[in-house]
Amino acid sequence: MTRIVSVDVVDLRFPTSLSLDGSDAMNKDADYSAAYVVLRTDEPGLAGHGFTFTIGRGNDVCVLAAEHRAAPLVGRDVDALVGDLGGVYRELASDSQLRWLGPDKGVEHLAMAAVMNAVWDLAARVAGKPLWQLLVDMDPEALVDTLDLTYLSDVLTRDEAIAMLASSMPQRAERVADLQRTGYPCYTTSAGWLGYSDDKLRRLATEALEQGFRHVKLKVGANLEDDVRRCSIAREVIGWDANLMIDANQVWDVPQAIEWVQALAEFKPLWIEEPTSPDDVLGHAAIRKAVAPIGVATGEHGMNRVLFKQLFQAEAIDFCQLDAARLASINEIVPVYLMALKFGVPVCPHAGGVGLCELVQHLSVFDYVAVSGTTEHRVTEFVDHLHEHFADPCIVSDGAYVLPSQPGFSAEIHEASVAEYAFPDGSFWKGRQAADDVVDAAGSIR
Amino acid sequence: MTRIVSVDVVDLRFPTSLSLDGSDAMNKDADYSAAYVVLRTDEPGLAGHGFTFTIGRGNDVCVLAAEHRAAPLVGRDVDALVGDLGGVYRELASDSQLRWLGPDKGVEHLAMAAVMNAVWDLAARVAGKPLWQLLVDMDPEALVDTLDLTYLSDVLTRDEAIAMLASSMPQRAERVADLQRTGYPCYTTSAGWLGYSDDKLRRLATEALEQGFRHVKLKVGANLEDDVRRCSIAREVIGWDANLMIDANQVWDVPQAIEWVQALAEFKPLWIEEPTSPDDVLGHAAIRKAVAPIGVATGEHGMNRVLFKQLFQAEAIDFCQLDAARLASINEIVPVYLMALKFGVPVCPHAGGVGLCELVQHLSVFDYVAVSGTTEHRVTEFVDHLHEHFADPCIVSDGAYVLPSQPGFSAEIHEASVAEYAFPDGSFWKGRQAADDVVDAAGSIR
Repeated sequence: MTRIVSVDVVDLRFPTSLSLDGSDAMNKDADYSAAYVVLRTDEPGLAGHGFTFTIGRGNDVCVLAAEHRAAPLVGRDVDALVGDLGGVYRELASDSQLRWLGPDKGVEHLAMAAVMNAVWDLAARVAGKPLWQLLVDMDPEALVDTLDLTYLSDVLTRDEAIAMLASSMPQRAERVADLQRTGYPCYTTSAGWLGYSDDKLRRLATEALEQGFRHVKLKVGANLEDDVRRCSIAREVIGWDANLMIDANQVWDVPQAIEWVQALAEFKPLWIEEPTSPDDVLGHAAIRKAVAPIGVATGEHGMNRVLFKQLFQAEAIDFCQLDAARLASINEIVPVYLMALKFGVPVCPHAGGVGLCELVQHLSVFDYVAVSGTTEHRVTEFVDHLHEHFADPCIVSDGAYVLPSQPGFSAEIHEASVAEYAFPDGSFWKGRQAADDVVDAAGSIR
Repeated sequence: MTRIVSVDVVDLRFPTSLSLDGSDAMNKDADYSAAYVVLRTDEPGLAGHGFTFTIGRGNDVCVLAAEHRAAPLVGRDVDALVGDLGGVYRELASDSQLRWLGPDKGVEHLAMAAVMNAVWDLAARVAGKPLWQLLVDMDPEALVDTLDLTYLSDVLTRDEAIAMLASSMPQRAERVADLQRTGYPCYTTSAGWLGYSDDKLRRLATEALEQGFRHVKLKVGANLEDDVRRCSIAREVIGWDANLMIDANQVWDVPQAIEWVQALAEFKPLWIEEPTSPDDVLGHAAIRKAVAPIGVATGEHGMNRVLFKQLFQAEAIDFCQLDAARLASINEIVPVYLMALKFGVPVCPHAGGVGLCELVQHLSVFDYVAVSGTTEHRVTEFVDHLHEHFADPCIVSDGAYVLPSQPGFSAEIHEASVAEYAFPDGSFWKGRQAADDVVDAAGSIR
């Protein structure tokens, strides 16, 4: 019998703020970080890996929350655990004292995502399959047994969920074969960070087209004049057949969002992403009405399934950008996919950060094979950062994710990366502290 | 010049689960807890006290988050700090790395509430006034300068906020005099915890009436048969002139909530509280339509001002039960009061827990004097637990809160209580651990 012998949760921080990678109108100095959970077992070589993604300070708060949340897993029989992936979710989620701190939102929910991502990674490794395949191979009823449908029955019942998944069974093998040929289409955000110069934007957008991408996304929202200039440059480079998306990272109130987006309408963006507070369902609905035919996209800060349910009910979005490290793993992500299908909203998962691309490629493959059966209006984010830290990094070729083939959720991080970027005791951060101390000793202003 | 010399954040936990005080359909074993912030100054006797409220495990996560959030306050000049209560809020809230963990929700927002409650307590002490009076005496424009109106301008502009507050200026003195005579009406939840026997319910409801309360609230939602019996007992005791409220603590999906409340309609509850997920604006709107004339109440888990904005826009609630330790203190609470006034929704703050009654009495007085000018349809929660730990405990007489008169936000906790209930090193918890160790040594099952 294999048991979980310990849970390690590591505070990993990568110093991305040094290069302004990841800079946008809201987040000027992100240090991409992960609260990284490893479920260690007594079987040599077998562990479950998962994480939530943060942007620096406060990652330690998520680590502490994940330690609490995962504590009941120590000592568990691995086969029993991965044989009841709904039961373990419900058990961990049912701690009413921890629930009070959300419910289902903020730090505690990020921690739940990290822990359950590790549990699903472990399940896929035990099965010897990449996670997307574990999901695709699951009987519809067995998969639905793992899902958290709480608070959703006015929109999605258990029977409906089973029926939706069952209807794709005959096509699944063929769809897997499709994707093995084509990969899953993605777009790049790497060109458009707000901190990049016009020249860098021009160069990166040109490179993106050369690499086969058909979508380019720009960060906007700090200064309208700059946005007009940057959108002009982007359209010059990519022309009018490729897609331009814009992303405001929540900086606007509702009336301001409408005004600003209308001022950029001449550049025909496919979508405006995160125009306002991620919590504002009715605000997104108002913006969507006002800026059509420009689409409204949001979801990377979509806190839980109840928020997405309402975004669909209110017809507030054209694109659903759920996040694999903010929703509570497969248990909560699959219900959002099913609701999206019911309401006809394509899911284009949020990625980037550290490791999100590794996670979401599994979700998009699952969507195509077992849920929507199409890539129409669907494109998954890709940002070409930090993949070198992953044991099974995503591979993008000709503007598409290549199907992951290794067992697991692609969430494992190299031990050498952990040793270097663990905060504050990894070699990178210790070295930086030592350098700061030298500067301090010399009397300079930090 | 007086400075803040340190910030202490203490993990305080009271063992309320031992008596089933606080038991409801969702929360069966709450240990009422506070992440308690003390801003210490170099002026003898001057400190700022604040807290957020939790129910046990995870309180340490809030403590860590509050330590991070309050760190920039150390070394600050107290006069400058309390002279710019909007500036300090915006500074602390603008940490984009911490914002990622919400935004404005969950652990990070609870921590913000704790810290800003302490800042407002300090401000009131420096002014030598109870907090309600500090607010009432502030010039409308100065008060609005402290408010967080971000994401609200589609419903509440700065100019509107100023005008609403200015319109009450001529009546304020008279209204203070009113409340000094009558107090502010409250209701009791002490009778209705789910873990109490029928006899205890009967006795406590009888006592509540004798003490002058005109409202009694029962917890429901675990078992319909029990709920029918308990509502019958309550109506037998209080008759049909007094008000009965019921509270499901989020246990239902939307269709189930409608069905269950309709089954209790014969008892004519004034409101059904927390029928479903606190995030489900559209769900509350659907329930409200279906169960009218029974009112719908929610808000103790209302995560931020954007949620309340939508509850009002969607006409989803009849009573707004904001929480003084979940919203980010006065800076965010006052905007919710102003939006509630605009939409005609009475605010009946959530209280109970530990210390929430001490806080919300200030809010209700402010509401009457400076915002709504009425107590019609308004009643503030009161639970008779744990007041003995407070240096300036609330006083309830004849079913009404007596106006607080001491300087501050009534948030200071006795040092002896801190010494006893700090977790895990206070004398109570150490003693309990020692007792458990004895049991363990004797080989008993814990």
